[in-house]
Amino acid sequence: LTQPSVTIIGGTGDQGLGLALRFAVAGREVRIGSRVEQRALEAAEQVKQRVRGAAVSGLENAAATQRAGDGIVILSVPFEHTVSTLKTLREALQPGAILVSMGVPLASAIGDVASRMLTPAQGSVAELCASLVPDGVEVVSAFQNVAAHRLAELDAPVECDVIVSGAPKARKPVMALCDDIPGLRAIDGGPLYNARYVESLTALLIGINIRYKLRHGAGLRLTYI
Amino acid sequence: LTQPSVTIIGGTGDQGLGLALRFAVAGREVRIGSRVEQRALEAAEQVKQRVRGAAVSGLENAAATQRAGDGIVILSVPFEHTVSTLKTLREALQPGAILVSMGVPLASAIGDVASRMLTPAQGSVAELCASLVPDGVEVVSAFQNVAAHRLAELDAPVECDVIVSGAPKARKPVMALCDDIPGLRAIDGGPLYNARYVESLTALLIGINIRYKLRHGAGLRLTYI
Repeated sequence: LTQPSVTIIGGTGDQGLGLALRFAVAGREVRIGSRVEQRALEAAEQVKQRVRGAAVSGLENAAATQRAGDGIVILSVPFEHTVSTLKTLREALQPGAILVSMGVPLASAIGDVASRMLTPAQGSVAELCASLVPDGVEVVSAFQNVAAHRLAELDAPVECDVIVSGAPKARKPVMALCDDIPGLRAIDGGPLYNARYVESLTALLIGINIRYKLRHGAGLRLTYI
Repeated sequence: LTQPSVTIIGGTGDQGLGLALRFAVAGREVRIGSRVEQRALEAAEQVKQRVRGAAVSGLENAAATQRAGDGIVILSVPFEHTVSTLKTLREALQPGAILVSMGVPLASAIGDVASRMLTPAQGSVAELCASLVPDGVEVVSAFQNVAAHRLAELDAPVECDVIVSGAPKARKPVMALCDDIPGLRAIDGGPLYNARYVESLTALLIGINIRYKLRHGAGLRLTYI
């Protein structure tokens, strides 16, 4: 009964690397993907230096995805790179793989955060991803609202809930993945359709971070659950 | 330095009455409005019976709104009655009044909760309200995600955050109103535009209530703030 491995596409970015560190601490097998293999190798080295005995490797994105087999592949790239990245992964994604969408449809324009939300025709980034993956690959929405800085502070629990949406069979291993990280709690977010509500919440949270000068970001918790 | 009074249109419904009870406990002057005066009077009587010394009265909706003067008027009606109710209040709303929108654009259709969300052309129920009130009346969005049952249990704190959005001058007294209720915390939600994110979150929360069989409803909290 081995746990599925986790592969993080765009794993050299702040949020992807933060997740890689946390999963490595939990003893999960971690693959870091990057467009440039050398950067992935460097990020993997960083994780090994912070986490003794980490089972982590660095590979170019498509190679990492292929190696993931039917494991979990987290897509951690800025929204504007979602489609181009998925295009490079399509051939590499194996049947049975679970693709985790953590993207948020925010335009990187100047101006008020709330008014920078885009709405993909599919309703959400997660559903956009679902429209692009090969048959046999399930998409699950999760991790949108976990601040990178909270993940990187390995000594502190991450006091956040993660709303996990997608087909039940795929949702469960991703919810189990959340349990790897102390303080993080997975909430069953139902069908992938609901990703739109979680993604748009991010615009609200970013605005709150700005108004309250929360440099490291507010988190989300549900009470009475 | 008297606190502004609070008038609850649709104050005989579960959520409106719950708020009336809590504000009465806090010593705030409360007006309960209903389409039918007799029902408003009965609800006010109920509040008096539960809260010793409550400063509460019951009136027909328009009369309650007129009496509110430049106080706070909370619109607590089902979404489908938003426009018709506002039509009856337009003449009664006084300059300087603050109208609080707590509505959520959910169709009362059969079927999955998430897919029952409607989107008003204005973007949110709150902005729909703002398009209908007379000049000099500000609209603030708040209280969407506070479960009626939590409000009615007067002995227990309400462990929820309330995201308050609207023009800064109107937002502040509504945030202060939240402080009336133990456990409730007001979060500065920025401009009224953001109401759309708070309202749509409700669809997600209702789905979670169903999946987790939370008869009394989950609440929202922000961490690290």
